[in-house]
Amino acid sequence: MKPIEWKVTATDGEARAGILKTRRSTIETPVFMPVGTQGAVKGIRFEWLEDELDARIILGNTYHLFLRPGNDVIRKLGGLHKFTSWQRSILTDSGGFQVFSLTDLRKLTEEGVEFRSHIDGSKQFLSPEISMDVQATLGSEIVMVFDECPPGKATYDISKQSLDLTVRWAARSKARFDELQELGMDAGRRTVAPASAGGAALEKESTSVEVESRPPADPGGTDLSGRQALFGIVQGASHLELRKESLDRTVEIGFDGYAIGGLSVGEEKPVMYGVLEYLAPQMPVDAPRYLMGVGTPEDLVEAVARGVDMFDCVIPTRNGRTGSAFTSRGKLNIRNARFIDDPNPIDPDCSCSVCRRYSLAYLRHLYQAGEMSASTLISHHNVAFFLDTMRSVRQSITSGTFSSFRREFLTKLQENQETRV
Amino acid sequence: MKPIEWKVTATDGEARAGILKTRRSTIETPVFMPVGTQGAVKGIRFEWLEDELDARIILGNTYHLFLRPGNDVIRKLGGLHKFTSWQRSILTDSGGFQVFSLTDLRKLTEEGVEFRSHIDGSKQFLSPEISMDVQATLGSEIVMVFDECPPGKATYDISKQSLDLTVRWAARSKARFDELQELGMDAGRRTVAPASAGGAALEKESTSVEVESRPPADPGGTDLSGRQALFGIVQGASHLELRKESLDRTVEIGFDGYAIGGLSVGEEKPVMYGVLEYLAPQMPVDAPRYLMGVGTPEDLVEAVARGVDMFDCVIPTRNGRTGSAFTSRGKLNIRNARFIDDPNPIDPDCSCSVCRRYSLAYLRHLYQAGEMSASTLISHHNVAFFLDTMRSVRQSITSGTFSSFRREFLTKLQENQETRV
Repeated sequence: MKPIEWKVTATDGEARAGILKTRRSTIETPVFMPVGTQGAVKGIRFEWLEDELDARIILGNTYHLFLRPGNDVIRKLGGLHKFTSWQRSILTDSGGFQVFSLTDLRKLTEEGVEFRSHIDGSKQFLSPEISMDVQATLGSEIVMVFDECPPGKATYDISKQSLDLTVRWAARSKARFDELQELGMDAGRRTVAPASAGGAALEKESTSVEVESRPPADPGGTDLSGRQALFGIVQGASHLELRKESLDRTVEIGFDGYAIGGLSVGEEKPVMYGVLEYLAPQMPVDAPRYLMGVGTPEDLVEAVARGVDMFDCVIPTRNGRTGSAFTSRGKLNIRNARFIDDPNPIDPDCSCSVCRRYSLAYLRHLYQAGEMSASTLISHHNVAFFLDTMRSVRQSITSGTFSSFRREFLTKLQENQETRV
Repeated sequence: MKPIEWKVTATDGEARAGILKTRRSTIETPVFMPVGTQGAVKGIRFEWLEDELDARIILGNTYHLFLRPGNDVIRKLGGLHKFTSWQRSILTDSGGFQVFSLTDLRKLTEEGVEFRSHIDGSKQFLSPEISMDVQATLGSEIVMVFDECPPGKATYDISKQSLDLTVRWAARSKARFDELQELGMDAGRRTVAPASAGGAALEKESTSVEVESRPPADPGGTDLSGRQALFGIVQGASHLELRKESLDRTVEIGFDGYAIGGLSVGEEKPVMYGVLEYLAPQMPVDAPRYLMGVGTPEDLVEAVARGVDMFDCVIPTRNGRTGSAFTSRGKLNIRNARFIDDPNPIDPDCSCSVCRRYSLAYLRHLYQAGEMSASTLISHHNVAFFLDTMRSVRQSITSGTFSSFRREFLTKLQENQETRV
């Protein structure tokens, strides 16, 4: 039995539609995963994410949760699902990317990386083994290996050095990960129930949290091991031969899925698309492909066209907090004076609860008045827009119309860039 | 036909349970009205206020909305209900209290008060007539007269002078209010539909807002004029004879309801309770009694015991934003280190969606991590607690057990004051 089940259900060119089943939910791909850095998707209550937006998987950040509330607290409270009450799938990153963003605060060795906490300046240490320990405590469905992430414009030599380290760390990550699974240290583990007529083979975990326990949206795969899955990460910056080497060596170690790291970190857009075009089609067909930390609606569609299945990015909620809304006709800024008495919704083509109810005039007023509802409502719409976009992408792949969808989607995105904002 | 319908359904001592019907909703009293200062209850989406919390009336602030987005914008967008999408009842204050809070920024004359906007320092002017104009544009169900609010510890002479002015302004408010109703300037007006078998006598107003129009929760009273109601305000600081004079002269002018202003503005608690005990029972039996800007859960119960029907206060949401939660056992501060791994809800006796789902440990983490969800979730619980408290108060009055409810409620409130926080 495997920790996840992955099936491609349709292809259109390099674009793939698929179904990813974890022990906690069934996820249709291509999928956008909202980011819940500190155990919450900023400004959006889980109730909305479940009931209206129907997100099946969100991201959690090892770096942030490791520093606060810390491993001990999360372990004591039974893992991230119980701690946060989010019972659908969670993917946790490894902390690598965050640590390497703290350029001035870190010290890198073969063993791992020493850094100073952005919260209190305290000295901290992360390594492949510690990252795996933390992610087992978090109990996420998908664990990421601990990698080093060089800048997008890193030279060949630096990228090669970094790649070698990442491969060694990937092997160490996997070794420790396997150990932890054997030891039963995964807080989100679900045990196999006796075969029943009904079908759901995974038993609900026992709960010690005294608030009401939430059931998963659906039981996810019925033939799964109940364990965590581990994804490898392909690095190599913008150097195609290094990307290929990284891919080969990572696949050789063997993971449940493969991520592309180190893109959207300072390189030019065409460079990112070039790497994807070269790399994605060479990635294993029988495993999900995850492009980390990307991106804009345009990026998502372009990456899907090149064969990517999974995405995460903070921009829907980060932009939401600054009053920047994504629409099918491009971005608009709610502060724009033209919206002062505009009775229309953010996006007339959007059917989210914010667009069905609230006008641009009202949202602009809330923003200008410093009401946090402006942030929460625009963030909600933005996440809805990203998830809806991925739904449309999936449908077009399934119906074999992805090329025309892509063309029309990207053309329409340009409309407001010129005329509205 | 009257603008509101008011009926006392039960009494227990001085405490009254009643039903207040407006053109937009049916409100059981005693009622706590969440405050939506700028057209939003801070941090709580209207969807929650409607569906779970079932608030039937909220407050809007004339001062804030007059300054931003301003009368022209709200008039153009069809009034506060259409602008905000809140379709249940709204009570608007007159701006008097806010203006007189700006001690350094104002200049008082018989005509009105000149002040500088807290937003941009611009010179502004409010008078009884202008306040009525603004409130007609807002189209609230209950309009408040424009009053002067002296400090709670004002001397007899100052209070008497202020009272005289407030009475003159009340008469001017009423005159202008009546004019505006005749002129059809009330943006929230609902016209009487031809008698129909179904019963709802008020026709839904036409909507020009292009987001989806929300129906009111219930049609409110079926035999109402569809116009706004106007409430008078009794002032007089802590001087009982002035309170009596103010009451008599206000009732003589004649209003749809009567408010007690100028309490909870710096005077001692026993002074407030003393004024209420003296004043409320002398207020007209056949009109709702509204204590403005009050208060804590204890204040609410004590004021109900003295005959008050309606309340508003910012503390559930203001405290929510600073991590202070109201519970049946007293307040608790979510920052308290003891909650770091506490799997219990804020209040085990509360059945709100926050208490059913989220633990103290998680809420504390969100607060410490600077997540705005901490504010929104605790505010949500606090408003739920206030509304639930009023539901319990109503039930106990109806069942004739208010005295014992009051005693037990106040005793229980003390528990955590000593042991938990």
